[in-house]
Order: sequence, then structure tokens, then C-alpha cells
Amino acid sequence: MSDPPDPGARPARGVSRRTLLGLAAGATLGAAAGVGVSAVRHDDATTAADQTVDFFGAHQAGIATPAQDRLHFAAFDLAPGVRRGELVELLRTWTGAAARMTLGQDVGTGAVTGAAASPPDDTGEALGLPAARLTLTLGFGTSLFAGEDRFGLAARRPPRLVELPGFPGDALDPARSGGDLCVQACADDPQIAVHAIRNLARLARGTASVRYSQLGFGRTSSTSTSQATPRNLMGFKDGTANVKAEDTAAMARHVWVRRGDGPAWMTGGSYLVSRRIRMLIEPWDSTPLTEQERVIGRAKGSGAPLGGEHELDALDLGRSDARGRPLIDPAAHVRLAHPSHNGGAALLRRGYSFVDGTDELGRLDAGLFFLAYQRDPQTQFARIQAALAGKHNDALNEYIQHVGSGLFACPGGVRPGGYWGQALFS
Amino acid sequence: MSDPPDPGARPARGVSRRTLLGLAAGATLGAAAGVGVSAVRHDDATTAADQTVDFFGAHQAGIATPAQDRLHFAAFDLAPGVRRGELVELLRTWTGAAARMTLGQDVGTGAVTGAAASPPDDTGEALGLPAARLTLTLGFGTSLFAGEDRFGLAARRPPRLVELPGFPGDALDPARSGGDLCVQACADDPQIAVHAIRNLARLARGTASVRYSQLGFGRTSSTSTSQATPRNLMGFKDGTANVKAEDTAAMARHVWVRRGDGPAWMTGGSYLVSRRIRMLIEPWDSTPLTEQERVIGRAKGSGAPLGGEHELDALDLGRSDARGRPLIDPAAHVRLAHPSHNGGAALLRRGYSFVDGTDELGRLDAGLFFLAYQRDPQTQFARIQAALAGKHNDALNEYIQHVGSGLFACPGGVRPGGYWGQALFS
Repeated sequence: MSDPPDPGARPARGVSRRTLLGLAAGATLGAAAGVGVSAVRHDDATTAADQTVDFFGAHQAGIATPAQDRLHFAAFDLAPGVRRGELVELLRTWTGAAARMTLGQDVGTGAVTGAAASPPDDTGEALGLPAARLTLTLGFGTSLFAGEDRFGLAARRPPRLVELPGFPGDALDPARSGGDLCVQACADDPQIAVHAIRNLARLARGTASVRYSQLGFGRTSSTSTSQATPRNLMGFKDGTANVKAEDTAAMARHVWVRRGDGPAWMTGGSYLVSRRIRMLIEPWDSTPLTEQERVIGRAKGSGAPLGGEHELDALDLGRSDARGRPLIDPAAHVRLAHPSHNGGAALLRRGYSFVDGTDELGRLDAGLFFLAYQRDPQTQFARIQAALAGKHNDALNEYIQHVGSGLFACPGGVRPGGYWGQALFS
Repeated sequence: MSDPPDPGARPARGVSRRTLLGLAAGATLGAAAGVGVSAVRHDDATTAADQTVDFFGAHQAGIATPAQDRLHFAAFDLAPGVRRGELVELLRTWTGAAARMTLGQDVGTGAVTGAAASPPDDTGEALGLPAARLTLTLGFGTSLFAGEDRFGLAARRPPRLVELPGFPGDALDPARSGGDLCVQACADDPQIAVHAIRNLARLARGTASVRYSQLGFGRTSSTSTSQATPRNLMGFKDGTANVKAEDTAAMARHVWVRRGDGPAWMTGGSYLVSRRIRMLIEPWDSTPLTEQERVIGRAKGSGAPLGGEHELDALDLGRSDARGRPLIDPAAHVRLAHPSHNGGAALLRRGYSFVDGTDELGRLDAGLFFLAYQRDPQTQFARIQAALAGKHNDALNEYIQHVGSGLFACPGGVRPGGYWGQALFS
């Protein structure tokens, strides 16, 4: 495993990829790298401050962060025989690399230095690119705590980290589900998100390998009131009623794990549920507009709830038309997913649209890689999904299929000098 | 097949998606759509001129156009029994839709109008988004002219449109190769490229279906002197020596089919070779920098040819070091791909990086979706690839594998009132 010189330290004054390239062009690279890259100031002139998101803090970045445009998500399995100390070393190494990459810096000594006999510390495809608001968010899967207790963590398993129940209609592929660890990489440039996962996977070689990964080309949720609501591949605005980062009361109630919610190491963290939801695009595209709107419960153009005028109009689930029929269908997605239908349960959704080519029948393999953060997956996601799943519930089920699933405990934030998930091990 | 009201006409004054949304919000949508959307002026205030690329012209857009950031490419097969007239009707319908979408307009009457019993003309996920420099480029595959001559086109087959030979090391998947038709959608927003292919596929239903499709998340070539050279997933700048659109002599020599090059219907067109090139990322990432640079023949940081200082320095293939060893290895990719090694042959490359998750062994399914335009695929791509392919030639072959292939005749440009490829049928 290739370890950066100072893992876990805040490399705020490290050399940026753009500075490094400038040095390389000036042929002083060898010298600069030789004396240690951290001696060179971060180049504020070429890297706008709003392009970096702080890796360190009370919470992990990538949850409350205004959702970036692109995703690369990976689930990892630890290799057979890996011991607790090696897992901790991996997390230390990853922390150092993640802290650098989120600042727009290359891993270790970078992509263009290195001994003749060993590969460079960084793969290089992000050279010259800014940080693009990269965030990296780590989660621990249920399998890390289960079975033969490989890492001595069973006693620290949060009671809320229990495998999700099966839901009617699930068609889960085990190869696209689960994982000992996950990393969610979000950035405004896909090359940056791809680079980050690839380099973490590379640093993990021999210790952990990628179980599955997913590229998401476009965000489908807003997590900030500063963001416009994007459209998903059904053509509808998605996530209008999402929990927003600015609503600190809602974040505290629905998203951040509190002291007393479970083991102390999860305080300030959140539980992530991932679902690969394939959309049956072709049947959907053959459906009349009125039926599409009935299924969703919103107008396709404005995003307003049916009967309303504007996207942000409150859902009035009790309203009926002149003939007494409810304006929002009893089986409409917005009704069944609404907190009022689920004991107040809500989620911070952070999903991305994907298109992975076509299947053997020529149908688009496309849909939503659903990501949702919450304080308690059992009373939040599982409760809501139980209300939605099944032929006779959410009308949307005719057009979607859940084909992958993951549940991860994302610990609280990382402090400078510490490492990802440290509290779990100390 | 849902036909736009005025296929092939230049809808320059049509309503933009942003205007349409404004109308929808103002509740005058029904009325506006009822009187015909083309009566409403294009909204220049919200759609910057440089975000649209003219669909009509002497050449198809998407070839000389400065390469956009994102790709959605699809190959289509015509359904059994489809006749020449239906193929022409498909091309007319596609032309109308393509002309609208490249202006940032929805297909037909849009996503939020339509009779109660029929689906809307547009799928809606691009509502509110600008055109993002969308280009759509059509190609006719070799299979369209072959076999039982379904469409009476055999006599019009260009002599240059001959199936590519097999190359040593090819591992082509037939399901990812060939196709009767192809459409290359490029845009600066992936949602726009995805939307375009999806809607063309939808309009084709019953006539043609998607054989395979490929999302490309990042361009790997510059096709204009105005663009910086991007890095591919090997971390190297790619396409430095590409044919550039501004070099009209090179475009005329290498890219645009001339009168006398073959049948008149291809004049002003170009031949497209597509290759899905998987990169063996993990072995590459384990390779020392000096070996990576030897394999490519360029410095990873600056992109300069080995022995040079700057990216744009000319390749000097004859230079040796003090001990008489060539600075650029005999097996280096840049040497073997160089025009001087291939009788002057050059290509306009327009490829994109892809990451399609991981394979069953946990390796990234990633690489380059290579797209190259040329006057003659036999003396250009096939000649260059013959020089590269095989264990004992290009040193890069240890790290890449060609897993898909296509060859398409992209006809000349579309004139307002005409349709894609019209000259082939008249």
C-alpha cells in the first residue's frame, strides 16, 4: 500500500494539481518534489475557494453538501484474512489520500514523480483539473460487523444497522448489493469522481477490492435551498420535498445520528441506504401524460402537486375535485412517500441518474441510483419503502424495479490528524 | 411513429424549452401549444447563442464541432421486414426531432402537452435545460448495404465502406459491434445527450431498435485549437496531434469525403470508425512512470514528446540519447500511430472516456470509446491500426483491448427542408 507522507494531516498548504503542472512545465518539478510538496503554497489564484469542500469537520462531507452534479460510488469487500490492524491502516491511508484529493491535490507525491521501479502515487487523469467540489463519504456495511466477527467489531454494531427487510417486487442482484465498505464520491466533474474512486481502489489493493461501482451522470436531488430541483429520467422534478441542509431542525431530526441513538462512534454520522432502481423507460415513455402525472402526483411541467400551481406548493393530500375524487391519487408516489403517510419519516435524498448502455433486449439499462441519508434506516427508509413497495401500493411500481441495495453506517466527521471512522476502533 | 408537425423544416423561431416552462408556469401553455409552438419566438435571453450548434449545413455537425464534454452513442438495427419507405420516413422523423433538440427544443409538441390517451411527444428530462451545444451525427452501417439488399441500396454502397479487417488482439463482442445506423449525440450536459438518444430511440419504435449504446463521461480529444488537450484514463494527454477543425487543408485531406471519392451521396460526409477500447486499468496503475512514458512516448505531466519540453513540440522520431538509444521507443504508441509511420494517414479523433462499473473480477470496466472520422477507413484507420495491433507492435497493447467495433458512412450535411442522408435515397 502506498502511503502518503503525512496521512491524516490537513494538507491545506499542499501543492495543487494546477500548481504542480506549472512547476512541471517550468522544469523545476524534480527539485520541488524533492524538497517536499507541502512547502509550496496552495495556489488560490487558480483554484477558486468554492471549488473545494472541507474534508474535515463535525460531519462527513457529501451529506449536507449541496449535491454535486456527478457521482462515482463504490462498494468494497475486504480480502479474506485481512485483520483489524490492516483495516485501520487502509482507513488511515485512505484518509490521507481523500484529504489531498478533496483539495484538488494528487495522491501522495503525485502522478509525475516516482522511482524508476515503482508506479507513481497517483494515476494522473485529474492533473490540471480543479477539485470540482469533490467530497468523499465513507460507510461501513452490515457485513463488517457480521459473521465470524473478523475485526472484533460485533459488539460495536449499531442496533440500527440491521439488514433491510426484503420488499415485495425487489429483484436484487447480490453482486450489486451490500459491501463491507462504501465510498460515495461526488464532484462537479465526472473525471474527478472517477479519479478519486480509482485511486482509493488502487491504495486498497491486497486489502479490499471493489465489489460493485456505479457512475451517476446527473444529480436528481437538491440538498440545499440554493439549488434548483433537477429532473429524473422519468422527466419529473425529483426531490422537491427533500430535507434541505439549511433546515437544521430537519437535519437534526431526520439525518444526523445523535448521542443516545446508538454507539457513541456513530454520533454525528448518518445511515446511508443505496438502491439501484432501474426505470422501465420504454413502458413509461408509452404512457399518456395524465397517467404519468397520476402515478407521480405532480404536474410534469411545473412540478407542482396536482391541484397546485407552483413546484413548492404544499401537498394537500385531502383535496378533491368537483366530483369528489382526490386530486392526488390514492396510489400516487408523492402521497405514499409523504411523511404524513409514514409517521413523519423523511430522508435526505442524494441520488443520481444512470445509463449503463442497453440490455440484451435493447432496452436502456437506466434509472436512479438512489442514495438516502437518515438517523435510523429501520424507521425511515424501511418504513417508507414498506409503504411504497408492492403491486397494490405505489402506482410507480409498474415502471421501476429495485435491482441493488446497500446499507451503510457512515460515521461522524474526521478531525485533522485523525482518520476515517477512527471512533469505531478506539 | 410520432411525427413532428413540420419535419425537416428549420425551426429557428420555435419555442425553447425554457420559454415553454415560462409559459407553463403562466398557465397559458395549453393556448400556446394549441396555436402551434412555432409562432413563439426563440428566447435569446435565456439561451446563449453559443450553446446551440447549427444542425443544418454543408457537413453534419458533431464532426468538426469543438468536441463537447459528454457523449451518448447508439447503434440501431432496423427491424425485420422494414422497407425502404419506412426507413426514409424514420430519417425524416428523426431529422425533425434532431433539428428541434439541437435548438434546445423538445420533440414535437413537447413533454407537457398531449392527448389524454397518448403519450407526450417528448420524454421531458431536458425540460428547462439549454441546448448545451448538442450535436447529432448520423451514420449508415455496412449492414445496411449488405446481405439480401433489403433497401435496394447495394449499388450505392461506397467502395470504401468495406468491413474492417480483423486485427491481432481484437476481442470484439458482436453485441457491441456493427449496427445498421448509428447516432452520435454530443453535448456539454450528459442529460441532454441522454435525452436526445432516448427520444430518437422512442421515435424509432417498431422500425429500429438500439443494438448497443455507450455513455462517455469525458472527452479525450480536442478537435479545435481553442481547446485544451484533456487526459484519458491512462492519465496522459490524448489527441495532442489530432486533426483540428481550423486546419482546413488537413480537414479536406483527411476528413471530408470529396466528389470522386465514391458515390455522390457521400460528398461532404465522412467515415466513422468506433472502437470500444477497454483499458486494463489495474496493470497500468502498477506500471512505473518511466515505463508508462516509454509505452506512450510522451511525458505524463506536460504531454511533451519524450526529449521535448512542451506539449505541442513536434515529434522528432529520429532523436537519440547520448548512448544512441532512440528517445522515443521503437514500440511507443506515438511513433507507431504517427502519420510518418503510416504513409501520411491521420484521423480526426473524437473519443470519450467511459466507466461502466466493474466486471465480475472487480476490475473497472473502463476505457476509451474511440471515435474517429476520415475520408477512407481502409487507408486511414485500418492502415494505422494494422501498424499498432499485435503483441510485437504498439507497447500499449499490453494495457488495452478492443472489445467493440463499428464502421459507418456519415453522409454530408442536411439542408433545411431536407432530411438526414436524403442523397442516398434520391
